[in-house]
Amino acid sequence: MKKQMKDNKIIDTFLHPTSVAVIGASKNLRKGGYRILNNLISNGFNGNIYPINPNASGEIFGLEFKKNIKDVEDDIDLAIFYVPNRVIPEILQDCIEKKVKGALIEASGFEEIGSEGLELKDEIVEITENFSKIRVVGPNCMGLTTIDESSDSPNKGGFFSSFLVFNEYKLGNIAIISQSGMLNGGYFTHLVQRYPGLGFRYVASIGNKMDISELEFLEYFIKDDSVNVIAIYLESFKNPRKFIELCREAKKYPKKTIILVKGGLTKQGQKATVSHTAAISESEDLTEALIKQAGIIKANSFFELFEYARTFSMISNSNKKLPEKGNLSIIVGSGGAGTILTDLTVKYGFELPELSKESYSILEEIFPTWMPPNKFALVDIWPAMEKAITTKRNPNDVMRSAFKAVLSEPKIEGLINFMFCSRQFRALSSVDVLIDTVKNYSKPVFFFLIGEEKELKYVTNKLSENNIPSFSNLESIVKNFRALLDEAHNKSKN
Amino acid sequence: MKKQMKDNKIIDTFLHPTSVAVIGASKNLRKGGYRILNNLISNGFNGNIYPINPNASGEIFGLEFKKNIKDVEDDIDLAIFYVPNRVIPEILQDCIEKKVKGALIEASGFEEIGSEGLELKDEIVEITENFSKIRVVGPNCMGLTTIDESSDSPNKGGFFSSFLVFNEYKLGNIAIISQSGMLNGGYFTHLVQRYPGLGFRYVASIGNKMDISELEFLEYFIKDDSVNVIAIYLESFKNPRKFIELCREAKKYPKKTIILVKGGLTKQGQKATVSHTAAISESEDLTEALIKQAGIIKANSFFELFEYARTFSMISNSNKKLPEKGNLSIIVGSGGAGTILTDLTVKYGFELPELSKESYSILEEIFPTWMPPNKFALVDIWPAMEKAITTKRNPNDVMRSAFKAVLSEPKIEGLINFMFCSRQFRALSSVDVLIDTVKNYSKPVFFFLIGEEKELKYVTNKLSENNIPSFSNLESIVKNFRALLDEAHNKSKN
Repeated sequence: MKKQMKDNKIIDTFLHPTSVAVIGASKNLRKGGYRILNNLISNGFNGNIYPINPNASGEIFGLEFKKNIKDVEDDIDLAIFYVPNRVIPEILQDCIEKKVKGALIEASGFEEIGSEGLELKDEIVEITENFSKIRVVGPNCMGLTTIDESSDSPNKGGFFSSFLVFNEYKLGNIAIISQSGMLNGGYFTHLVQRYPGLGFRYVASIGNKMDISELEFLEYFIKDDSVNVIAIYLESFKNPRKFIELCREAKKYPKKTIILVKGGLTKQGQKATVSHTAAISESEDLTEALIKQAGIIKANSFFELFEYARTFSMISNSNKKLPEKGNLSIIVGSGGAGTILTDLTVKYGFELPELSKESYSILEEIFPTWMPPNKFALVDIWPAMEKAITTKRNPNDVMRSAFKAVLSEPKIEGLINFMFCSRQFRALSSVDVLIDTVKNYSKPVFFFLIGEEKELKYVTNKLSENNIPSFSNLESIVKNFRALLDEAHNKSKN
Repeated sequence: MKKQMKDNKIIDTFLHPTSVAVIGASKNLRKGGYRILNNLISNGFNGNIYPINPNASGEIFGLEFKKNIKDVEDDIDLAIFYVPNRVIPEILQDCIEKKVKGALIEASGFEEIGSEGLELKDEIVEITENFSKIRVVGPNCMGLTTIDESSDSPNKGGFFSSFLVFNEYKLGNIAIISQSGMLNGGYFTHLVQRYPGLGFRYVASIGNKMDISELEFLEYFIKDDSVNVIAIYLESFKNPRKFIELCREAKKYPKKTIILVKGGLTKQGQKATVSHTAAISESEDLTEALIKQAGIIKANSFFELFEYARTFSMISNSNKKLPEKGNLSIIVGSGGAGTILTDLTVKYGFELPELSKESYSILEEIFPTWMPPNKFALVDIWPAMEKAITTKRNPNDVMRSAFKAVLSEPKIEGLINFMFCSRQFRALSSVDVLIDTVKNYSKPVFFFLIGEEKELKYVTNKLSENNIPSFSNLESIVKNFRALLDEAHNKSKN
């Protein structure tokens, strides 16, 4: 293992192959072998593709079926398996003879099904001479994805080997390593449609990790400059010590954040992982200790994993500085939301500091005398807006002043801004003006958005394009800010 | 106070007035006085409306302006104030002379602004003879809403007195009591558009609660049969002992759930409430003790408040039985989601029990022999679906059997079902079939949905129409199930 870890070439072959064979390619639209081919072709895989099926003949997508991989004349980097588990050892033998470098086995029915599956595994270990003859990703996985260009760009595509259809995706700086195939399938589609700002570079569904595990992919993603955020779902650690070592290595890279959600923390969860990926899962205590030693961000669910991933992706794209002390500010148009946010910031370890004379005087100028601003960094903007309306001042100037007051205050490290999205209210608070203002500061600004569905989408998209995270749940927004603070602390404990 | 509490007539007048005067009515579209009138008229308020403004003349919406409320000949139930704070005492005096029963004061600038506002309050107390001459809701609030029919029905409308525009709403069994005006404004619009299943009967924005408070509204909603769920946001309790008493009273009603989010739990949050509603807020410890004694559901944010409200609203509409012991089952199409859900159910105090022989044999029949089902109540349905496809069996029969296996098991009290929403996959798992199946059981079933945006909306709507809650966050779904369990325990501790 150790020798292989230093050599990333094999992962390069798995993520950037130049020629692939699809074992189990099929003309039947309902079969995975068809969908894998379809994914490769419709997303413009720019290497050679060879459909292999002993029972098929003729062509598919203009490619000639071969009965056996050995019938292919050219060299093949990768064989993608979507065939019944029983026939895999024999075909692997063929692949070895053909000098195929890697096998991506998506079929299930191995260790997770008990003794029969274990026998199959033993057979594979023997045939591959303990994976020295050919390297294996999987089995029981949903393939690998490399995105080179977003689906809405003219050069859309990359390498898509999942057996579920991919037609919508956005290139970004996030890489996924997952023991849940769903993250290279239905959940991926879900993420892309739900969060317009979420872009990905790689997805590695690693399944039972019979040979290659999270470790090789993690090392590769740490060293790959196109990746800033590594989002991981694991049911067990292949080698906890090595995992910690790699995570610590990642701290040397200022813009490399690792986020982990771990399944199988409870006894019943551990029973679940055994039947899923045959993982003997580490308990919650062990996992907590490992996360602490590794100095990475912990998430409790897929939802949190990708909310955090999106946040760090945007922060690294926008060159914002992580908060270090936990001094926040809040601007709200609703006193109730301001109160709850204030409670939540305290609960999550933040403080809303007292404002300096300079900052306070900026606010005083925009507030009516009958309702002066708070002395601390919670700005309830409503009275200032009312004053602007009655004095016929442009409300956007007022918002700009409020942003300036808190963001130019040296001890304040970030801002949560509440925004009510209404077509009617665009003039009152223009998202463009706010985006321009945010650009002047190196402090992260998060938006809490509520309002009309259509206008919400409009504002969310605008903010996303400018790498400003937005949320519609007060607790989520504070948790995500807390993740920034945790990451700053992780990075400083080298 | 006590005497008034027994008499709900005044709240009846505030929520179902037959004639209202709008003090500060205006032709200027940007003024709150215009928008209040507009809200009343466009939503078909079926009582008399009198626009009052000493500086206006002519008509608005076909109604004649009066200079003074005393110029109106007919009796008036309610005067809605949207005028500068300084002129309010004098006009209140007019209202008293006119024998108006209630004043709904939306203007701000009272106790929350300090000594000047306190003087105004004292003046009002004096003029109203401590509110014995006229009852007051507010000041510093956003009005009251009563929904009689949904906005998409031909008889749409009710009583809408907020100064923010309401044009989309759904009649339902939820009543809101709030010290944040936003809940009778922008947030309300947000809720209605975001959660198609969320319907409301009343919203009471109570502001500084100078006279009438949460107590009178709470008592009214407890006794009102059209209300099943009371969602409350408070910054302080008017009378904690009385609040607890009323909540305990509510336990006698089997379908009456009270959910509270409390602002001002921390020292900084308390500073926020003072400048918002002048509330001297109770600390977290006190609030926790009060919630426990009251036996109500606690929420941490508006998001949680309305997620819980929706859940209880649907559960009470669908006659599902609350879980009492915490024995849950899970059906998933993703092993990873199953593992995380299992961990979360344990974390939130649930158990996935071992299946009886009967239940297990139902599952065995649909599963392939090479991948038998779990012995406990986590069903990873994927192998069964694969078997159905290869044996050309209708996958919907398989889903029906899986539901039957867990829901007919006596010790299981509910189900979380994972569903991937894809137009392509409708045939594999029809939401109509699942809805029909759920109807056969008195156990609550929650859906976890991911998938394609459009199909997600389609499925969410179908489920909502049938009072089946759906979620797209694994932790939320388990938390909401936990709220059901908590409520069952609350109800049993009489």
